[in-house]
Amino acid sequence: MSGDSFGKVFILTTFGESHGYGLGGVVQGCPSGIPLSEAFIQKYLDLRRPGKGISSTKRQEKDKVKLLSGVFEGKTTGTAIGFFIANEDMRSRDYSKIKNIYRPGHADFTYDKKYGFRDYRGGGRSSGRETVSRVVGGSIARAFLNTLGIVIQAYTLELGGIRVEKIDLNEIEKNYFFSPDKDVIPKWENRIQEVKSVGDTLGGIVEIRAFNVPAGLGEPVFDKLDARLAYALMGVGAVKGVEIGTGFEVAKKLGSQTNDFLTSNGFMSNNAGGILGGISSGQDIVVRAAVKPIPSLGKVQRTVDTKGREVEIRVGGRHDISAIPRIVPVLEAMVALVLADFILLQRRMGTF
Amino acid sequence: MSGDSFGKVFILTTFGESHGYGLGGVVQGCPSGIPLSEAFIQKYLDLRRPGKGISSTKRQEKDKVKLLSGVFEGKTTGTAIGFFIANEDMRSRDYSKIKNIYRPGHADFTYDKKYGFRDYRGGGRSSGRETVSRVVGGSIARAFLNTLGIVIQAYTLELGGIRVEKIDLNEIEKNYFFSPDKDVIPKWENRIQEVKSVGDTLGGIVEIRAFNVPAGLGEPVFDKLDARLAYALMGVGAVKGVEIGTGFEVAKKLGSQTNDFLTSNGFMSNNAGGILGGISSGQDIVVRAAVKPIPSLGKVQRTVDTKGREVEIRVGGRHDISAIPRIVPVLEAMVALVLADFILLQRRMGTF
Amino acid sequence: MSGDSFGKVFILTTFGESHGYGLGGVVQGCPSGIPLSEAFIQKYLDLRRPGKGISSTKRQEKDKVKLLSGVFEGKTTGTAIGFFIANEDMRSRDYSKIKNIYRPGHADFTYDKKYGFRDYRGGGRSSGRETVSRVVGGSIARAFLNTLGIVIQAYTLELGGIRVEKIDLNEIEKNYFFSPDKDVIPKWENRIQEVKSVGDTLGGIVEIRAFNVPAGLGEPVFDKLDARLAYALMGVGAVKGVEIGTGFEVAKKLGSQTNDFLTSNGFMSNNAGGILGGISSGQDIVVRAAVKPIPSLGKVQRTVDTKGREVEIRVGGRHDISAIPRIVPVLEAMVALVLADFILLQRRMGTF
Amino acid sequence: MSGDSFGKVFILTTFGESHGYGLGGVVQGCPSGIPLSEAFIQKYLDLRRPGKGISSTKRQEKDKVKLLSGVFEGKTTGTAIGFFIANEDMRSRDYSKIKNIYRPGHADFTYDKKYGFRDYRGGGRSSGRETVSRVVGGSIARAFLNTLGIVIQAYTLELGGIRVEKIDLNEIEKNYFFSPDKDVIPKWENRIQEVKSVGDTLGGIVEIRAFNVPAGLGEPVFDKLDARLAYALMGVGAVKGVEIGTGFEVAKKLGSQTNDFLTSNGFMSNNAGGILGGISSGQDIVVRAAVKPIPSLGKVQRTVDTKGREVEIRVGGRHDISAIPRIVPVLEAMVALVLADFILLQRRMGTF
Repeated sequence: MSGDSFGKVFILTTFGESHGYGLGGVVQGCPSGIPLSEAFIQKYLDLRRPGKGISSTKRQEKDKVKLLSGVFEGKTTGTAIGFFIANEDMRSRDYSKIKNIYRPGHADFTYDKKYGFRDYRGGGRSSGRETVSRVVGGSIARAFLNTLGIVIQAYTLELGGIRVEKIDLNEIEKNYFFSPDKDVIPKWENRIQEVKSVGDTLGGIVEIRAFNVPAGLGEPVFDKLDARLAYALMGVGAVKGVEIGTGFEVAKKLGSQTNDFLTSNGFMSNNAGGILGGISSGQDIVVRAAVKPIPSLGKVQRTVDTKGREVEIRVGGRHDISAIPRIVPVLEAMVALVLADFILLQRRMGTF
Repeated sequence: MSGDSFGKVFILTTFGESHGYGLGGVVQGCPSGIPLSEAFIQKYLDLRRPGKGISSTKRQEKDKVKLLSGVFEGKTTGTAIGFFIANEDMRSRDYSKIKNIYRPGHADFTYDKKYGFRDYRGGGRSSGRETVSRVVGGSIARAFLNTLGIVIQAYTLELGGIRVEKIDLNEIEKNYFFSPDKDVIPKWENRIQEVKSVGDTLGGIVEIRAFNVPAGLGEPVFDKLDARLAYALMGVGAVKGVEIGTGFEVAKKLGSQTNDFLTSNGFMSNNAGGILGGISSGQDIVVRAAVKPIPSLGKVQRTVDTKGREVEIRVGGRHDISAIPRIVPVLEAMVALVLADFILLQRRMGTF
Repeated sequence: MSGDSFGKVFILTTFGESHGYGLGGVVQGCPSGIPLSEAFIQKYLDLRRPGKGISSTKRQEKDKVKLLSGVFEGKTTGTAIGFFIANEDMRSRDYSKIKNIYRPGHADFTYDKKYGFRDYRGGGRSSGRETVSRVVGGSIARAFLNTLGIVIQAYTLELGGIRVEKIDLNEIEKNYFFSPDKDVIPKWENRIQEVKSVGDTLGGIVEIRAFNVPAGLGEPVFDKLDARLAYALMGVGAVKGVEIGTGFEVAKKLGSQTNDFLTSNGFMSNNAGGILGGISSGQDIVVRAAVKPIPSLGKVQRTVDTKGREVEIRVGGRHDISAIPRIVPVLEAMVALVLADFILLQRRMGTF
Repeated sequence: MSGDSFGKVFILTTFGESHGYGLGGVVQGCPSGIPLSEAFIQKYLDLRRPGKGISSTKRQEKDKVKLLSGVFEGKTTGTAIGFFIANEDMRSRDYSKIKNIYRPGHADFTYDKKYGFRDYRGGGRSSGRETVSRVVGGSIARAFLNTLGIVIQAYTLELGGIRVEKIDLNEIEKNYFFSPDKDVIPKWENRIQEVKSVGDTLGGIVEIRAFNVPAGLGEPVFDKLDARLAYALMGVGAVKGVEIGTGFEVAKKLGSQTNDFLTSNGFMSNNAGGILGGISSGQDIVVRAAVKPIPSLGKVQRTVDTKGREVEIRVGGRHDISAIPRIVPVLEAMVALVLADFILLQRRMGTF
């Protein structure tokens, strides 16, 4: 494999750049007979679109998905599902400013080192825009997971250093931040204005939960469920850390505090985040991703050009202040892809 | 793939259980002509063995590796390298106590759910003993990385809530804790005694660095270097979190604090942990793993048996107090496997 | 993998049905910096189009390929190459005749058994039209192989039981049959008219040669070069047999007749078809594929409907008389994909 | 993948050389709860051992398989199954004669080209002895297939140009040639003596059938059942051709002769060899492999040494006259591996 495919049995392969004709992909391995429509997928794509407030990108793509194959009379046929999202706003901007410059925190430098040159238009393949294909793939996975009653829900846990104080899942879809705590929103808005005014950007933490996941998913010893989740989430641009259940806090705890005791009514706690020995336990899956601030700043930054000469760069204010909240549906999509894959693998046992 | 293979081109496949005949595996894809001997591998295996102090396991395996194929006249032939480590201390213990009981924090419950039954002897395939095969595979990867001057070094960053205060790489191999700070050792020893006396166990954090890694490694968009590192490390038993560079701290920082500026002398900082856009930048790779406390406690714990009846269990004091430091060479091995794989993939470009 | 991807490092993934929106795919793993254009690919696609004479399909697609990503300023960027060919002639024909009937020799019956239902429009995913994506993928592989001077040439060796009597590579592109023997063409044309007049169809044999292939390609013990070629060619619809070098004739020969002796000037013969122990020897690769007659006949055939009731079917004269010659560029494409993949894998050795 | 693994979900990975410590491998992906023992596997291994008559190899290995993991209390646990067969007869022969010489028809030349050097002892990894691991893997696959009632039977169809005249499956295991026609045996024995006396060797054709295979196996468009069978069989040393059902004969037939008509009682013929559109139809699977003569001759042959100097070689009479019959159980094993893999993949549909 060469990096553009995700999964072992339920497999998403993607292509596309920020300022080419568009983005798309292929989902293979999806069982036949699953209800699927462009409208179903579009619902998830729309959640990822730039909104008002935190996101100030001027690019306003409609991101309309087109299903090209693999669906017949409203159901998956079991064959490859091709899809495409045309880039609408790819007007010939002037890239001469960044063409020969390595933007700090971006992949410009490493793409040049890896490939010898790069498509410099808007980041090319390394652009966050690549994630639209992940959302499409993830929503196809969710069409399948829906038939089993599995639900995935992500939300912003922390933004700009300010953490939610309560988690009310009913609030999440009511606000643009995907916040489970409506009271934290004014604080986040203030923080954003503060940082925006100085041309800076913010990081945060997203928590993803999966409900109604059957026990038995995961393939030790390398393809454990937690290992694949970490792989899936860390592969999303801007993510710099992944943790399961109690996560990094385990380092400070005792075994008697991190073990989840069992009673005849089930587990008494969920420090494990729903995964024991790399296999789902039937409890909720709980995983968190740390999201770094957007590297494109309104501030002047030091860097070099492709010839190694020192230059200054100021990327400008067209970009988002944070990858949150737009990254939230992307992370949900990745968890969906992992779960769909493991369910199909587990079916080889004849269990469900 | 079904979970017992790791890698895409440089591939480790493993087998073996805690109390079967032994553990072993196959490395395929290793280039020919690499110097390799059992003695070279044994050096790494010995680092993983239970020691005195923190580790109180009574099991004292010699863990002697035997190379079964793929090496001829001291060099790899390019064909599959088979290896085996016999289990020496697999005397017929009495497992009736745990045969029908789900030990809290262990994989007993989930293995039963996944496979319908399990090899209950010492955890079977889910035992930490499985990691000896990882160390062998990783040391073969290191034999290859050595030819390119790439060095991997892991160390204990935090144990029982007590963090090192300085990092002196020269100290690491001088002490049993793989500590880069000799002054923290007495504090750790006290903490261990304290916890041991109440039958409890400790977690911690391990940091792994790779030096002299060429720029260009990683295969976007899914097989990014950081994604594969997260996958590799999270798949090691006891690891509950993985972070790269600044890691979870990015959530509280501004973009101007997390970007690494470039000068004609290179990067001015390494918040990225040596990875930009999922591709190595030529800076040191820096990654951390959170390690949960050993789940086998000297304390009485609540659980259920395979029939769902509530029982109490006290596993006893034969086990380690922490997976640290024995996990340290295992995590090094995993990083070595990831790097060897990406170097071979990158060679398709004809770059090096 | 679930069947829509081909290759290990240089990987083609395809999607699309006969009468959906179109066909397309993704090529990943192609090295960066390879010159590539739609015109280059189109040249190969045009060779596959239905022609006059042998092919009597009324469908006249232009099959114009559109490159959607992975190429920038005329060169591959090293990232995923997406492509699409719109179906132009997918007018709403009346499929009620075949909707509920299993056409003999087609995949209707098995698709229903596998997936529970099928896209019955023109065969859906099982249509020979699927091979346009293979030709695109293969031509991208050839763009890469061209940089190494590797040439692949296929031709019709036998049609309707009449075999060529000489092989003149210069003739192949001068005639619609891809025949290396211009004198056999009138005989083939007579045979076609003969068979056409009774509503029947013809099979044949295609031979594919690859020139200037470096020694060392192939990955024993399972991914031998011959094994992958057999896999590649047998996976093309209508192919029922594959042989290398002397092929099935080895069954009647002695070892002294099938061994290729070596002199200081190289091999004295090429019974091996350029492959020894599953690895290319530097000689020409020679492989043949047996192509079955088109199963859609002008004659009445017995079959059953989806309810198991016996019916008669007469598919009509719109179809080709033979998959030859249209299959010829498809088989070339498959060989190109195999060679590109193995070259990239072999590069891990640092050999070339 | 690097060539030592076979399969996508049910995966065999092998290692080992002719004159190293032994041969072995790992089977991953096998469902749990399948009855499996060393005795069951040994039965198939014993069929592959050199016998009297046709086979004149002096090497008399016992080939005793040892199961190292993955089986507990007589059943597979669902985890990796490790196995090993020690080389017993690896006494330090004098290899100086062939060390620097490329034996015609062997892989000596290409291994040197690929890897830079080779383990010259008895062919190393390229030795036919490698197939013992295939037989073990295949027999584990058969343990699984047995639970579904699937039976695989191979037999010698042709030897030294003499074809069987009838196929009586009951005869096969009664004679050393795995012949389904007892009357052909004296002819074969005469032919062998004839050829042996002049230091030459013989090829032949093996036919493999699989019975009771469910419809629906195969993953278009690349991983068709016939494509994977061709890949599996062509990857066995000595095989130079593979055909399905009517095979190469389709080239001379009309569509009305190769289509299999359907009635309410099922198919009226089996020209397709049980595979339509790359998917099993529920009919018997029928596949044939062409086997080249053993390249080690008692005759003097021309070749070169590793410096390119012309030399003569006479390998001597210790070798078999034909890879038949010893290859017969190996080809059965490969078919078993393919079927087990596809059944597990098909289970994702929830069909069986």
